[in-house]
Amino acid sequence: MIRDPRSGCPIATTLDIVGDRWTLVVLRDLLVGKKRFSEFLASPEEIATNVLTDRLALLEEAGLVTKTPYQLRPKRYEFSLTKKGEALLPTLQAMCRWANRFIPGTWTPPESFMRRKVK
Amino acid sequence: MIRDPRSGCPIATTLDIVGDRWTLVVLRDLLVGKKRFSEFLASPEEIATNVLTDRLALLEEAGLVTKTPYQLRPKRYEFSLTKKGEALLPTLQAMCRWANRFIPGTWTPPESFMRRKVK
Repeated sequence: MIRDPRSGCPIATTLDIVGDRWTLVVLRDLLVGKKRFSEFLASPEEIATNVLTDRLALLEEAGLVTKTPYQLRPKRYEFSLTKKGEALLPTLQAMCRWANRFIPGTWTPPESFMRRKVK
Repeated sequence: MIRDPRSGCPIATTLDIVGDRWTLVVLRDLLVGKKRFSEFLASPEEIATNVLTDRLALLEEAGLVTKTPYQLRPKRYEFSLTKKGEALLPTLQAMCRWANRFIPGTWTPPESFMRRKVK
């Protein structure tokens, strides 16, 4: 469940939604085109199933992600970003620039990711 | 203590350091010139003393913050950002733009904060 905002500060309010170790990692996966539970689980960070379930529900509750069933028995969903979710791209790009500059050994993201603009 | 990086991904690596609800709120306070424990405690988000102590130690360990004693008995410190810490400004500015666009009622930061550039 999303917490009540701690203040009107836009930084604190953003962190009320995505301020944890995993939510923006899942958002990254969605931005590069991953859609299914199994695809998120396959990422190198090895998110735990229960954490992934929790973060996807939170992203949906916050209006950053929508889900659509692609299979009925058992019911399975594909997840995709809303405009609000996609608009966090510049935040992720800024984190990439920071880490590439200050943390040796971090991967350089594809140019297509770093140059992409939010509509 | 800072965790070992989960992967070489610059986003995941950044979140290994600042991926929680409070660290970037403290960093925001440092960016606007707050230096002392009592000043961070006075911010509207009302960070708890133990959380603040923990996050300042983590920021120092990660090389984002340095501390200098300004009083000896009892020993008290002033905290300031290193170049590495200050360089997270564009990430915070991106969060501000996102929240101001998508979360109604969030405060508009001062122009001086939004226009400021990292050296």
